[in-house]
Amino acid sequence: MRIAILGGDGFVGWPTALHLSNAGHEVHILDNLSRRWIDTELGVQSLTPMDSIQERCRIWKQTSGETIHFHLLDLAKEYERLKQWLAETKPDAIIHFAEQRAAPYSMKTDRHKVYTVNNNTNATHNLLAAMVESAPGAHLVHLGTMGVYGYSSVGAPIPEGYLDVQIDTPNGPKEQEILYPTRPGSIYHMTKSLDQILFQFYAQNDGLRITDLHQGIVWGTHTDQTRKHEQLINRFDYDGDYGTVLNRFLIQAAIGYPLTVHGTGGQTRAFIHIQDSVRCIELALGDAPASGDRVKIFNQMTETHRVRDLADLVAKLTGAKVKNLPNPRKEAPENDLIVDNDQFLALGLNPTTLAEGLLSEVVDVAKKYAHRIDRSRVPAVSAWTKDIAKTLDRDPEGKDLREVS
Amino acid sequence: MRIAILGGDGFVGWPTALHLSNAGHEVHILDNLSRRWIDTELGVQSLTPMDSIQERCRIWKQTSGETIHFHLLDLAKEYERLKQWLAETKPDAIIHFAEQRAAPYSMKTDRHKVYTVNNNTNATHNLLAAMVESAPGAHLVHLGTMGVYGYSSVGAPIPEGYLDVQIDTPNGPKEQEILYPTRPGSIYHMTKSLDQILFQFYAQNDGLRITDLHQGIVWGTHTDQTRKHEQLINRFDYDGDYGTVLNRFLIQAAIGYPLTVHGTGGQTRAFIHIQDSVRCIELALGDAPASGDRVKIFNQMTETHRVRDLADLVAKLTGAKVKNLPNPRKEAPENDLIVDNDQFLALGLNPTTLAEGLLSEVVDVAKKYAHRIDRSRVPAVSAWTKDIAKTLDRDPEGKDLREVS
Repeated sequence: MRIAILGGDGFVGWPTALHLSNAGHEVHILDNLSRRWIDTELGVQSLTPMDSIQERCRIWKQTSGETIHFHLLDLAKEYERLKQWLAETKPDAIIHFAEQRAAPYSMKTDRHKVYTVNNNTNATHNLLAAMVESAPGAHLVHLGTMGVYGYSSVGAPIPEGYLDVQIDTPNGPKEQEILYPTRPGSIYHMTKSLDQILFQFYAQNDGLRITDLHQGIVWGTHTDQTRKHEQLINRFDYDGDYGTVLNRFLIQAAIGYPLTVHGTGGQTRAFIHIQDSVRCIELALGDAPASGDRVKIFNQMTETHRVRDLADLVAKLTGAKVKNLPNPRKEAPENDLIVDNDQFLALGLNPTTLAEGLLSEVVDVAKKYAHRIDRSRVPAVSAWTKDIAKTLDRDPEGKDLREVS
Repeated sequence: MRIAILGGDGFVGWPTALHLSNAGHEVHILDNLSRRWIDTELGVQSLTPMDSIQERCRIWKQTSGETIHFHLLDLAKEYERLKQWLAETKPDAIIHFAEQRAAPYSMKTDRHKVYTVNNNTNATHNLLAAMVESAPGAHLVHLGTMGVYGYSSVGAPIPEGYLDVQIDTPNGPKEQEILYPTRPGSIYHMTKSLDQILFQFYAQNDGLRITDLHQGIVWGTHTDQTRKHEQLINRFDYDGDYGTVLNRFLIQAAIGYPLTVHGTGGQTRAFIHIQDSVRCIELALGDAPASGDRVKIFNQMTETHRVRDLADLVAKLTGAKVKNLPNPRKEAPENDLIVDNDQFLALGLNPTTLAEGLLSEVVDVAKKYAHRIDRSRVPAVSAWTKDIAKTLDRDPEGKDLREVS
């Protein structure tokens, strides 16, 4: 297949590009490289030393003999170039990662809120409008999030996208299928909830073929392809804005930093290893809906865990200490989460679970690059409201105190 | 109250500004005047001769002694100016009309789709983000539409915003309240469906006080205030993009044009007279939710009618002919629609129904300004898909044929 990967320079985008190129597909990355700019803005960097996208593509060619094409394009701002590129290149499939993807970044300030909504909504909508004009038959695979549903679950398994409800009518109750109701808990999650409405409309009005992957929290760093060469290494975010919970515990353990648990750690979340993430995308590509079908929605996750249980697991494995901190997020302190993922299992996914070997691999990567870590950027200090901001602990190591003594 | 009216130069915005100024409130209109630019783009004009907003405000001062302030501001583009204005002016209430409001315009071309999503989503989100910073206690009243729900109803009354559903859990069925599921049928309607998600988030995360008015199709042109002076006259759109169904039938009758019914005319829609529309907004202002409450949603309509019944009514009243044309929209050819509007009735709304006197008043207005009508702009030719575009009748009068003979 000829596959366009929008946002193919990112944490899941890059290993996806490698995986699909390795599988023999013609891969084109379109990216505005905004994630690299945000590193610059925040003054942080990937734990792993990451080459330019052009250099990465060169190394991949040298290593595998395969070509990955790179096109610098801003999906949210360059509608006409996008439309023209689609018309000229005629991809069979389009994988859409090209959105600002961190909840804490989206909540930092009003500027970050405005940027996230503007960027993500226009990126997705521009793509859909351009597909109608230039690539109406292509299969769109979008990376969404389990987080659109919020985390105050009623204790029922979250189905794969749709819910049958009974509505009372004058002629008795009637069944109706609806999109499973969303209740996003951050501006970032909200934009994915908006995306869902855009997809519903374009599938219905224009017959676009759309798959929406509601992904859990991705952990790990290496895939089969990123291991092939030091310069193919994947991005690894450890900071309080872009780092995600399990990976952060693992780097904290590696550098002797307390494992920072927000609140009681009673939040239950869905997880998936990066290797499974790229495999799921490949499976979804092979199982496209037909034109006229409803949007196909998968829950892309393999297991659920309570945050404090993960902290305990990592502490046991590494000897790290756990520290409970005030929660910067406005969310339920404790929640259950049950998720259906029958569709990917039926397509042959063989889940990679939290094996000690893979956890240790991440700790080893973190130890190798520990000198690149700025410890002051480890705490999560982006608060959901101004009132919450006042309660945060910005120095879980107590460094400021030590400097006084 | 000090009230900001965003989009206060428009068809419902202007009479709302007059109504609230007349009631003794301090009224500030913020508008980018985009609707006047779109008239220019389309080469059409309001049936009624409409003065500049500055001149309208001057005449209102002269007529009533009251001041309406006007501020030229683009909500979707000028976030910082908006935030500053809110901080300086500290409105008690904000009424938000400032969105591109025509479904056919939103479906004209991909450029119009992209504009509508970009403008409407950023306008609403900028406002919400700026309120958190500068006006967290103000009451936001937003003009939404009944159309977010689509028109393939299951025959149940559409409640005012929320639906209780039963979800099966391992411990038996559990009740949960959800936003009544939307299924928008155009890009324009879709943006109002996106707005609903934005409101849900900001009410929940930031405690903003938000009322969302799901309005039916507005008809009529005069209110008590616009009748007071020729130069206070309201905008009246008759063209295929901005004209709405009942008003279009009335001007078609006035100029001897066939009443253009799309498909069988089996579409059932909700309606409200412009005088009731401004009255409802006033009632909503007096019944604000508290901080922390869910978004308060009203169905702002007074009656439902099938389109072909309206055509027959106008034909009977005026002697006009009805002409059935191919439908430019992708929608159910026939639908029922039952709508709850108990909340406004409970607040004292006394509905203005389709009385012959008010219908005749609109026909009289149309006859008075008939010389301003470009008959070639009467057909609705904005098609929902390229396939539908090929089927349309762009010349219901058969003028092209006559010119040949």
